[in-house]
Amino acid sequence: MTVTVAGRLPTEADLERWRSADQAALPRRLAALRGRMAEEGVGGYFGVRRENIRYLTGLELAEGEEKVAANSGQFVVSATDLVVLADSRYTVQAAEQCAEARIERVYYDFFERWPALLEQVGGPKRVAVEAGFVSHLMWQRMAAAAPGVELVPVENWVETERQVKEPSEIERVAAACAVADAALEWLLPSLRPGLTEAEVALQLEWEMRTKGAEALAFDVAVLSGPKSALPHGSPGARRLAAGEVLLFDFGAQVCGYRSDMTRTMFVGEPRSADLEIYALVARAQQAAIDALAHALSAGGERPSGRAIDKIARDVIREAGYGDHYGHGLGHGIGLATHELPGLGLTAPDTPLPSPTVFTVEPGVYLDGVMGVRIEDTLWFDAEAGRLDRLTLFPREVTVVG
Amino acid sequence: MTVTVAGRLPTEADLERWRSADQAALPRRLAALRGRMAEEGVGGYFGVRRENIRYLTGLELAEGEEKVAANSGQFVVSATDLVVLADSRYTVQAAEQCAEARIERVYYDFFERWPALLEQVGGPKRVAVEAGFVSHLMWQRMAAAAPGVELVPVENWVETERQVKEPSEIERVAAACAVADAALEWLLPSLRPGLTEAEVALQLEWEMRTKGAEALAFDVAVLSGPKSALPHGSPGARRLAAGEVLLFDFGAQVCGYRSDMTRTMFVGEPRSADLEIYALVARAQQAAIDALAHALSAGGERPSGRAIDKIARDVIREAGYGDHYGHGLGHGIGLATHELPGLGLTAPDTPLPSPTVFTVEPGVYLDGVMGVRIEDTLWFDAEAGRLDRLTLFPREVTVVG
Repeated sequence: MTVTVAGRLPTEADLERWRSADQAALPRRLAALRGRMAEEGVGGYFGVRRENIRYLTGLELAEGEEKVAANSGQFVVSATDLVVLADSRYTVQAAEQCAEARIERVYYDFFERWPALLEQVGGPKRVAVEAGFVSHLMWQRMAAAAPGVELVPVENWVETERQVKEPSEIERVAAACAVADAALEWLLPSLRPGLTEAEVALQLEWEMRTKGAEALAFDVAVLSGPKSALPHGSPGARRLAAGEVLLFDFGAQVCGYRSDMTRTMFVGEPRSADLEIYALVARAQQAAIDALAHALSAGGERPSGRAIDKIARDVIREAGYGDHYGHGLGHGIGLATHELPGLGLTAPDTPLPSPTVFTVEPGVYLDGVMGVRIEDTLWFDAEAGRLDRLTLFPREVTVVG
Repeated sequence: MTVTVAGRLPTEADLERWRSADQAALPRRLAALRGRMAEEGVGGYFGVRRENIRYLTGLELAEGEEKVAANSGQFVVSATDLVVLADSRYTVQAAEQCAEARIERVYYDFFERWPALLEQVGGPKRVAVEAGFVSHLMWQRMAAAAPGVELVPVENWVETERQVKEPSEIERVAAACAVADAALEWLLPSLRPGLTEAEVALQLEWEMRTKGAEALAFDVAVLSGPKSALPHGSPGARRLAAGEVLLFDFGAQVCGYRSDMTRTMFVGEPRSADLEIYALVARAQQAAIDALAHALSAGGERPSGRAIDKIARDVIREAGYGDHYGHGLGHGIGLATHELPGLGLTAPDTPLPSPTVFTVEPGVYLDGVMGVRIEDTLWFDAEAGRLDRLTLFPREVTVVG
């Protein structure tokens, strides 16, 4: 596998190449799902999740667009067929993007059409449905519309496949990381006490979106001083002040794929107590990365996400801050910002997938005082023996303002 | 009722006033829901929809945030109690924003806790659930966790209440309209042939977000030439060209509430055929607005959304373009961009609510050639005899570039 864009911004040629790679990959992805369907004894699969729509049909919906697209993008897979639903707003786009699919025009008549749609794909008697993403009301109406068909609630069939990344998927995560790196580097000289968190967040967003990001991976978090102690927080009217920390958690989206990075900086002269917390978190992150690298060089079985989480967690616990680190170590990333595999206390004790991409992001949060999190997106490839950071912005202590 | 901000940008004092108005309104909104619960014979209501969370509890989630907030924000209403769920990321925010609520810390243990949560609010035996917004999987697990409790699938109980707007809600829609008006006015001088749709859309977004919008109401649509014929389309690499139309469909969000406006302009010298379509659409829109105004001045029963739709549709049909106008005339707007009441062919033949806010947006779309849509957000108040446009940007033929 060759990943050719780590560390550089995406070009028009890259975008074209990635779209072609997706089209070429659709048959293999569909075959994997059909294999699972055969194993589980279902003749049909009904999908509605935005990320799975793109992965299996090629249709690109923006984040949240599935809320307003009605049935458009929803799809039925059978052993021999792929049908994508589209109303008049989406038929042109679906015809362009869904090379493997037959497009069916459906508008306000989904439930009436549902039995005939199933007949057209071979009349399966058992149909797997993405039950975590179909509303209960829709489920009830589908069941009532075709009472002879058993709906089988399923979870993570496609998500499990998606965690193993193709080269062009890794390239896109790498490109999204490069956009985020470049945006933060550009922002740095403008940071100074007195700016509000919201102003800084908007500038960082703007920079990503004019430098190659088609969208954000998620709303930019810029949190200063005591607000950095909130593992989840929105940038607000609080102003940057000397002697405080400044936490950035942000990511870009490039051709559907996402990055995720957190950096905690210091505005003016750092306080020594804050530097100690910073060094602890950096040590915990490095311990996890070292353990992953060691597992690769040692060969043998790949470590589990739970085992890697424990290594970072132990560093923080042994320093006496175990109660100040409540979240998991990391998460897979790709078409979704958070996806499989999980790295955390509740992650399964099974080997990590490979090749894959995930974050490593320990933190220490002192309520009402300050917090530090350091997060990188990593590419993990056991077969190639590679562990590469894709977010290349320095992790050293950074003083701004 | 006095709406004090139509046509001007929101200030910090406005935001504070609106937040206070929400807090003051919570008891009345909850009482309305409890009335409905009593009528329908359910002792509990379980809500998960983002807009309903804000309307009934005060908790502010960003668009799409409910996808990553796990159970945070979800709420249970009983005859005497309101419980809002929050994990550690949301407890501080919930305590600040949910004046009427008891906050329950729930994290990864919702289904275990569900029976006890119900016991704490009085042990209802029948619980209404927002079945269009709870996944089937979640429904199944709730049912299994408390098998003695009947879950009752319900739709639109809160949405029906939300269509009748309080003064502070109308003020916020008006302020969002003012932000959108100002942004478009600012953008106008910079428009010229050669710019891409995507560049123009990003500029318009930026202007809204630095002039008072906390977020967009939806992704900005900027569509030029033949692309304007797509009632739904994304701005892309297509460049503005003289002799073509340029369609903007966009809206702002201010303190939770949204605006929606479409303007179709002309780049350089308009083609006479395009001007004729424009005049037709303007006439159709004005006919609908005149009919609303006439109904108000005549007194008597308020017209239905279906009747108003027919008036605009007849104008377009009689001109021979009936097949080129496929969507409904308009939709309510508030916490959601699209909400009740509907104005369309399939809208109920019952009087419009009042006071309320909705869009009027007829269009004519010539496939592969061009399209025109003109959309305004209107405030309709039968008791006060008022029909006010809240989007004030001129509707006259506008030539740019």
